[in-house]
Order: sequence, then structure tokens, then C-alpha cells
Amino acid sequence: MTADLTIDLDRLMGRIAALGRIGALPGGGCKRLALTPEDAEGRALVTGWFRDLGLDVHTDVIGNCWAIRPGRSGGAPVVMGSHIDTVATGGLYDGVLGVLGGLEVIESAIQAGIETERPLAVAFFTNEEGARFAPDMMGSGVAQGGLDLDEMLAKVGIDGVSVAEALAAIGAAGSHPVGALAPDTYLELHIEQGPVLEAEGLAIGVVTGVQGISWSEITVEGQAAHAGTTPMALRHDAGLVAARIAAEARAIADAFGPPQVATVGRIALTPDLVNVIPERAVLTVDLRNTDEARLQAAEARLFAQAEAFAAAEGCRLSRRTLARFEPVAFDATLVDAVEAGAAALGLTHRRMPSGAGHDAQMFAPRCPSAMIFVPSQDGISHNIREYTAPAQIAPGVRLLAQVALARAGRVDQKGQTE
Amino acid sequence: MTADLTIDLDRLMGRIAALGRIGALPGGGCKRLALTPEDAEGRALVTGWFRDLGLDVHTDVIGNCWAIRPGRSGGAPVVMGSHIDTVATGGLYDGVLGVLGGLEVIESAIQAGIETERPLAVAFFTNEEGARFAPDMMGSGVAQGGLDLDEMLAKVGIDGVSVAEALAAIGAAGSHPVGALAPDTYLELHIEQGPVLEAEGLAIGVVTGVQGISWSEITVEGQAAHAGTTPMALRHDAGLVAARIAAEARAIADAFGPPQVATVGRIALTPDLVNVIPERAVLTVDLRNTDEARLQAAEARLFAQAEAFAAAEGCRLSRRTLARFEPVAFDATLVDAVEAGAAALGLTHRRMPSGAGHDAQMFAPRCPSAMIFVPSQDGISHNIREYTAPAQIAPGVRLLAQVALARAGRVDQKGQTE
Repeated sequence: MTADLTIDLDRLMGRIAALGRIGALPGGGCKRLALTPEDAEGRALVTGWFRDLGLDVHTDVIGNCWAIRPGRSGGAPVVMGSHIDTVATGGLYDGVLGVLGGLEVIESAIQAGIETERPLAVAFFTNEEGARFAPDMMGSGVAQGGLDLDEMLAKVGIDGVSVAEALAAIGAAGSHPVGALAPDTYLELHIEQGPVLEAEGLAIGVVTGVQGISWSEITVEGQAAHAGTTPMALRHDAGLVAARIAAEARAIADAFGPPQVATVGRIALTPDLVNVIPERAVLTVDLRNTDEARLQAAEARLFAQAEAFAAAEGCRLSRRTLARFEPVAFDATLVDAVEAGAAALGLTHRRMPSGAGHDAQMFAPRCPSAMIFVPSQDGISHNIREYTAPAQIAPGVRLLAQVALARAGRVDQKGQTE
Repeated sequence: MTADLTIDLDRLMGRIAALGRIGALPGGGCKRLALTPEDAEGRALVTGWFRDLGLDVHTDVIGNCWAIRPGRSGGAPVVMGSHIDTVATGGLYDGVLGVLGGLEVIESAIQAGIETERPLAVAFFTNEEGARFAPDMMGSGVAQGGLDLDEMLAKVGIDGVSVAEALAAIGAAGSHPVGALAPDTYLELHIEQGPVLEAEGLAIGVVTGVQGISWSEITVEGQAAHAGTTPMALRHDAGLVAARIAAEARAIADAFGPPQVATVGRIALTPDLVNVIPERAVLTVDLRNTDEARLQAAEARLFAQAEAFAAAEGCRLSRRTLARFEPVAFDATLVDAVEAGAAALGLTHRRMPSGAGHDAQMFAPRCPSAMIFVPSQDGISHNIREYTAPAQIAPGVRLLAQVALARAGRVDQKGQTE
């Protein structure tokens, strides 16, 4: 095995802190919504670092930015990337770690005199969060053909501004056509955004894919009536049906077992009075699974049971889909390489799916793609309390370097291709 | 049996309609909150009718108004009463029927030349609804010693005005001390405000008492976390605990059987987002039973199960009592008399508890008291759609006359005491 690349953790943490000062929030964390002036300032800072390192910087028409270090033999690059936009109450690590971690890999390789056969690139993609413009993962989706460019440029954000207008306003659009840059391999280092690694005391999550997501909004219509004078047998309690659906969602997750998860995050009752039987309940159900067939089975059971609960209570039920994404499986060979790399570096690790969406899933259909997770303190993300300690970040970057350099064909100073 | 008293249904319905025009709402129904100018106008209309009939009108210091027709032998009066204040979206019948029905009984008796040994009275009591000033049943409670006069006069309403100020503002306070008028018997005709009589096709509800009421607010504290990245085993889902409590409330009602009822009318989740596990849930539970021991058993099971659900999910639970009233049982002899009267008049009827609170429960500890229910269309009350047809009102008034005259010692024109 080749020697572990020595990274400069202080330099990386300094850059994460510097980027975090742009759009910084009073209590910590930061807000850099996609294509805002704060995002523009962040882009300028990061592309400045790219250029300082002598990388070839390419920006495409939807604002994705790619910085390439040429390889000895040319060909498609091995791309390390993620995003630098944040949600409104974002942390310093979500997305940023994958971009600045990739930059750190390239800079460390340059300083160590390590070259690669293939080009090695670091990139950030426009509007991964979807917090200003829906859908999320927009830039990577357009870059890889999963989303239509013109359709995305026309999307209007929460502030009434279109993607095209916002790109123009901050001068973020480049001249490169989307899809011109087809990666050989895509690798994304990211914080877990969940509690599993911390709970199990592990350094690395070898991400096998991204869970499929099913979001439903269920509306139950019953009949309002007096809580004191209406016998139980004559009730049409929409709130009770909602409660039973919420309990059923948990029962489904328990019955299916991991990685199935199920969450009822919203319940709204009408009229919402202590002594009136609810005439209306609106609730959301979030189901996720890495297996599409299992996810469909969970949906089928939930919807059938919901209908049964409503019918038993003499209520009407309607349902609409708020979001639906099929699961994405990462490239088996590349996932094996990540796992082998973790083992080679002596890092504790486990295979796990990603519960959240990431740019990597937009690359997965077109090129071998994979992700590396590092722990999130208390499993918290999309929150100003988001935190991963430097000592937890370092192993992730070392592993990213290990896998990226190997995929790109590492050539040490001795001139030998690995 | 004495001949049925002939009442003038058109006169009664005309008075109900006339009172309903005071504070009338655009879509129907009316709003005469206690001690407002609308209430003052209603009081003036009704006391005008009392005086037109030559009754002795007494108003006490909290605005309860009593109109007495003397009896041949004197003694404590048989009082028929209820209230003429309404909720903000009130109907035309709630309370009003008991007052104007009582007035109709007295006027019909006068016209038929029927006298009584004891005085016969009709009364309305201040702020039965509690919609402007808490607590409800205030006037009757003060009149019967269940509530303290000075404490009630100091109560401040939803508009920042005290009861004493509101009484003064509309000149509703009289000079009679509270408690001076101790009834021999209290009888209250009221709409059911529930669906039972309509569902069973019955004319009369013989009310056996008022359910005890237990209102609790339960707060569950869990931990917010990402719906996608947090394994089920690591969750502390406050919303799930709330859902289980709501389902348990129904299970308790089912297990205990009638007259136990249980309602979860409010559920509020925090942060109330589709993809975030709720960190906080606040819900209300309304439990009612006519038997105090059963009500306590229902509370005990609910609270114990709630604690168990919270503990199983790793959540904390706290609870506060919003309201708690013990059940009231009406006088058995008087209830028997109401039932016998219904049978004698050939009216279909059933015994039933009242699910809602009424002035009668404030009289019950001090004198024989009972209530007569007539059907509510669709069980609806406290709503502008509240409705009871004239043909459903007439039997109630006839039965009220039957029982009141008998209790007061009916003396027909022939001079024979019944």
C-alpha cells in the first residue's frame, strides 16, 4: 500500500472557518442561500483558493464550478465535490467539507509531489439545499442530465426571483455548457447528519447509497362535535384517525426493520379546541428505505391502513405526494474501494445508507460514485449547532485522498504509477 | 292525572325569534356575550315580558333575574330557569329555551286560571357560558353559594373588563342579596346539544345528572432529529407519544363503555416539519363520566399509560389540569317525576346524563333539581346552525309545565289542589 497522504488539517479547518464567516449567524452557523450575495462571496473565496493553487477553473451555465488539476495521461477526471450553499439556519460543515476536503487533497498532493494519471478535480454545485429554489440538488442534477437546464433556470425561488435572474444578479453563470465535463469517478466526503457513527463510536461511514424518500400529506375529514355530549359510537374523529396513522407509521418501521424509517413530523387539527372532536386532521408521513420494493411495500401498507382507520371511524381520507425519490445504489466496486481504504488506514467504519439526499446521487447514474461520512455531533445538521471535530474530519479527508488518488492513478515522486 | 296544560307555541317561538334578533349574526345565530350591551338589550326584552305578565321581578347583585308568580300558600318557589347569554357564535335555543319555556308555562297557567300552592318562578342567571368571563355558570354558582360573590365580581373578562365593571356599565346589577331566594325545586329545560335523542328518534331526555369533566394538557418533550438519518432505535419522538396517548384515550372510552367519553381535541407538534422528528408535543385530553370513581379510574389509566409511552420513547412528560368538575347527580325523586311525566304525556324518552355543564348543576347541591332535554338537530350547538324544530320544543315545554305545576301544587279553577 502507498503511504498515507499527509494533509494539513489546520489549513483545512482555517478555510472552513473563513467560509463560515460569510453569512455568519449571531448564535453560530451561517446562512448562504443559493445564488444570494452571501453565496457569491463564498464562491469568490473558494474559487480564489482554486486559482491560487493554479487549477483550471471552469464554471458552467448554471453556476457549477469545477477546478481541475491535469493528469499525466488525461481522460475524464476523478471529481471530488459537494456544495457551498446552506439552509437558512445552516452549519459550517454540510457540503463545505466535501469541497474544501477535496481542495485539501489536491493541495496536499501537489505539495507532496504526487501526480495522477487522470485529472483530479474538486467541484461545487449550485443549489444543493433547495432552501431557496426547489428542487434541491439542482446544479448536479443539471450537470448530469437528470434535470433539464431550461426548466431549472425558470424555477422561481421563495423570494420571487428565478434561478436565471439570480445567476445573473451575482454573475455566477459561466460559459461552459452543462454536461461537458463527464467525470470518470465522483467522490463526496460529507458529514453524516445523523447519529449512527457517533452512537457506535465509529470514524467512517462507507455510504452504500441514498435512501429512497416518500413524503405524503394525508388529510382526514370527519365531523366536529361536542366532546361531552357526543357518544363514542356516533363520532367521526379525524384526530383519532391521524393518531392511528402516526402509530402505524412507527409500527411499519418496526416491522420492516432497518433501514426502513418512518416519521410523522406534522399534525394539524381543526378546530383544535379541547372540547371539540376534530373535524379535520392534516398530517405528513416521511418514509425512507434503500430498497425501492420495500419502500413501495411500506407505502402500500401505510396507505391501506390509513384508509382502513378512516373507514372504521366514518371519515374521508385524501392523500397527495409531496416528494418521491427512488433509492440510489452507489457503484459496488467503488464502495468496496472506500471500505478497503478505510480498513487500510486502520479506521473504524461501517457500511450505511445516506438518509438525506446528496449531489452524489445525481452522479451515480452516469459514473461510478460513492460517499464517505464522518460523524455529526448529536446527529445534528441543518442547525447552527452542527459540529464535527477536527479530529473526526481528518480521517475522512485522508480516506478521500486515499480513494481519489488511487482512482486517478497515483504517481509518486519516484514516478511509479500505483 | 290532571289535564295537560295548553301552551301557546307560536307565542313562545315568536319570543325566541325576537330575542334571537338581539346580537343576530349575519349567517344566523347570535352573539350576546354576558353583560355586554347586547346582553343588556336581551335582559330588557325578557324582563319586560316578565313585568307585562305582572310577575314580581327581583334582580340580585350579580345580575341574576327572578320573576315570581305568588302561590296560594307561599313558601319557597319552584324555579324554572336557565340563561340568555350566548357564546360568540351562539344559536337561538341554548339557555333561551329554558327561560322563555318557563315564562310560557307561567303565562299559560295564568291564562288557564291555574294557580299553585307554592310560588312559581322563572329566572335567568348571569354568565352561564363563560365565554367572556371564566368560570362559566357564574350567576347560578354565586346564587347557590358554590362560588364566592366578591371573587366573581373581581373576575376580568377577555376584553379586560371586570364582572363588577361590566355589571355597572349596563346597569344589570340589582339590589337583592345573592342567596336570598332559595328555591324549593329547580327545573331546567334545555336543548340536548348532542346527537343522542335525534339518533334514537326520541322526544325527551330525562337528565339524570351532569357528567364529571376532566381536562388535562399533556406536554411531551423528546428530541428533534433528521427524519432520514436517525435510526428508529435512536429516536425520542414526542409526536409518536402524543399519537399513542390519543389512541389510548379512545381505548379507555371503549373499554369503560358509556357514559365514559374521551376526546383529544388539540395536538401541537414542534417544529412541525415534514422531515424533522417532533421534539415537543402538546395535547389535551377531555375525559367525562357520570361516576366520579370511574372518572378517576379513567384518569389514572390515561396518565399511567401516557407516562409509559413517554418512558418507552425516552421522552419526558408533564401534565397540568385545565378543568376538573365532579359529576352531579340530580335528585332521584325529581328525576323519577320527570320520567313519569314524560310517560304520562305519552312522550318517547330516555334517561341520559348531560355531557355539558348547566346552571342546574349549581342548584343540585342545595335543592331538588332536574333537567329536561329536547333534541338538537345534528347534535349541533354553540354554532349558528344550532336548531330545534317547534314541534320538538312543544313536548319539552308541556313536560316542564307538567312537572313544575305538580311540584308547586297545582290548583285548577275548580279550586282543588292536585
